[in-house]
Amino acid sequence: MHRDLLNPDALELQPVLEPPITGLLIADARLIDLYPDFFGAVKIPVKALLAGEDQKNLKNLQQLYHFFCEHSLSRDEIVHVYGGGTISDLAAYAVSTYKRGCRLHLYPSTLLGMVDAAIGGKTGLNHENLKNLIGSFYPAERIVIHPGFLSSLPWEELRQGMAEMLKAVMLFPCLPLPDFGGKILPNEEDILGHALYKLSLCQSDPYDRSDRMLLNFGHSFGHALESFSNFNISHGDAIALGMNMACDFSLQMELVNQEQYDSRKELLSRYPYPPPVLDYLATINPDDLLPLMYQDKKNNRKLRLVLPVGKDIKLVEMSMNGSA
Amino acid sequence: MHRDLLNPDALELQPVLEPPITGLLIADARLIDLYPDFFGAVKIPVKALLAGEDQKNLKNLQQLYHFFCEHSLSRDEIVHVYGGGTISDLAAYAVSTYKRGCRLHLYPSTLLGMVDAAIGGKTGLNHENLKNLIGSFYPAERIVIHPGFLSSLPWEELRQGMAEMLKAVMLFPCLPLPDFGGKILPNEEDILGHALYKLSLCQSDPYDRSDRMLLNFGHSFGHALESFSNFNISHGDAIALGMNMACDFSLQMELVNQEQYDSRKELLSRYPYPPPVLDYLATINPDDLLPLMYQDKKNNRKLRLVLPVGKDIKLVEMSMNGSA
Repeated sequence: MHRDLLNPDALELQPVLEPPITGLLIADARLIDLYPDFFGAVKIPVKALLAGEDQKNLKNLQQLYHFFCEHSLSRDEIVHVYGGGTISDLAAYAVSTYKRGCRLHLYPSTLLGMVDAAIGGKTGLNHENLKNLIGSFYPAERIVIHPGFLSSLPWEELRQGMAEMLKAVMLFPCLPLPDFGGKILPNEEDILGHALYKLSLCQSDPYDRSDRMLLNFGHSFGHALESFSNFNISHGDAIALGMNMACDFSLQMELVNQEQYDSRKELLSRYPYPPPVLDYLATINPDDLLPLMYQDKKNNRKLRLVLPVGKDIKLVEMSMNGSA
Repeated sequence: MHRDLLNPDALELQPVLEPPITGLLIADARLIDLYPDFFGAVKIPVKALLAGEDQKNLKNLQQLYHFFCEHSLSRDEIVHVYGGGTISDLAAYAVSTYKRGCRLHLYPSTLLGMVDAAIGGKTGLNHENLKNLIGSFYPAERIVIHPGFLSSLPWEELRQGMAEMLKAVMLFPCLPLPDFGGKILPNEEDILGHALYKLSLCQSDPYDRSDRMLLNFGHSFGHALESFSNFNISHGDAIALGMNMACDFSLQMELVNQEQYDSRKELLSRYPYPPPVLDYLATINPDDLLPLMYQDKKNNRKLRLVLPVGKDIKLVEMSMNGSA
């Protein structure tokens, strides 16, 4: 079923995993290995997928369509999706377009999924080396958060979710900042707080035409970095770097003063950037990113960037010669 | 831009063709040949497609995505689509999923397109031999009707549109019945009347969960006939035959009395069924259609059929052993 509206009651905490009993299940293959007791108890058909941006392609999409066909999935049946953002992007796109949309329940298994990817209904595939070039708006009927999944999450992946939490704090300083040491896992309240913040912004602008675009802070630069590195830089790391680049750009364009710049950079400096990514970044000429940003799906012939402007963070439209 | 609602003002008459001046254009290759003066005057990029159910496939979809990429289509730009239902089904699906939805203007060139396919936002591709198994709900921002296109339409194709008009008259007897001799083309008023009838039903039920399903009268049997014949039976002919099968089924199930059956069959008998299609039909065992109807995208584990019931036409849910 197509969802016209994002439902605030869709978000649900599930401290103890309960196997779904009807419909079909799609899950990250690694998760199935990590939780054999839970997935072993599942009695509905299961399709395992590999995680990763390089898996969000038309070939894997066709495999999902085939899985749905094989089990005669109807529009009234639920597809339950367990995994991180790349799994849910692909699976939710497949569900949104099969028979013009079936029912969708998401069970994000990563921090990035819980606070960001599973919320707001964006689905997507990568195509012609551009991220989410093909996609739909299709909010899940239910988003079930099981914080227990985080205990098996590698630090590398936990960090990607922390980057989106950092971005949310940059936009809305009342939100809790995660512990970047990675020693203490974010607690339920912090996760739900961030998830609800994103849900509220998406509800006010489901199709990403106004307020919701602020969530793209760091993303224009970040997506270009991801594409340019052939997705060797992970999404969260790219967004954290992208926020730094956006701040630098704002200072250069005199959209912020030195004090406004410094306070933002101080907050951004707390993020634990991995040294290999910083080394890679040093080899990139920012001008090489511009053609990719121009092609980014949120951009028209003009370049639209979310940038610090004075004390705020705003959507700024740039002409192609660089004036704001 | 994704459209939440079907806009009643979207329907527009264009007695004289005006070349669009911005965005991209997709057209039926045959139409480009038939109207060289018009398409010769178009200055925006043009992509020609072949019409036909067999063209609504993933390979052609990828070609459209490539066309959009090549011209850096943005979400704010309009894709203008000239052609019949199979062209608009494919092109509108591509537009609806590229960058999560760009702007769409449809210019139906067939009678079927004008009174049915271009209206109501259903898009679709065929997959694993099932019609519109992949698709989206994505109403066009504008539907521009140029009745002049009908003068170049072969009788075979004109008839397909007349079948949908006949179906609409079966559901809503106030609508004008087309001239099945094909000597007189339907006039503007009749076309707009039928288009507005469909638009009003779709507005009351955009996602096809209740009233709109009545428009599927003849379609469960009809789609199955199309699939079973590998799309050798055209859509309209299949629907006309499907309405006959639905009436026969209702009589058999005692959902209508003989008089109610006879009056409907009399109206349906006016349709000019082509002899080769009737010959093919005589070779089919209706029981062979059931597995395909069961898999049809509107059906759940139960079989839902739109059937004559007394004086009305209603959605009837059947259990698999055949009881209503």
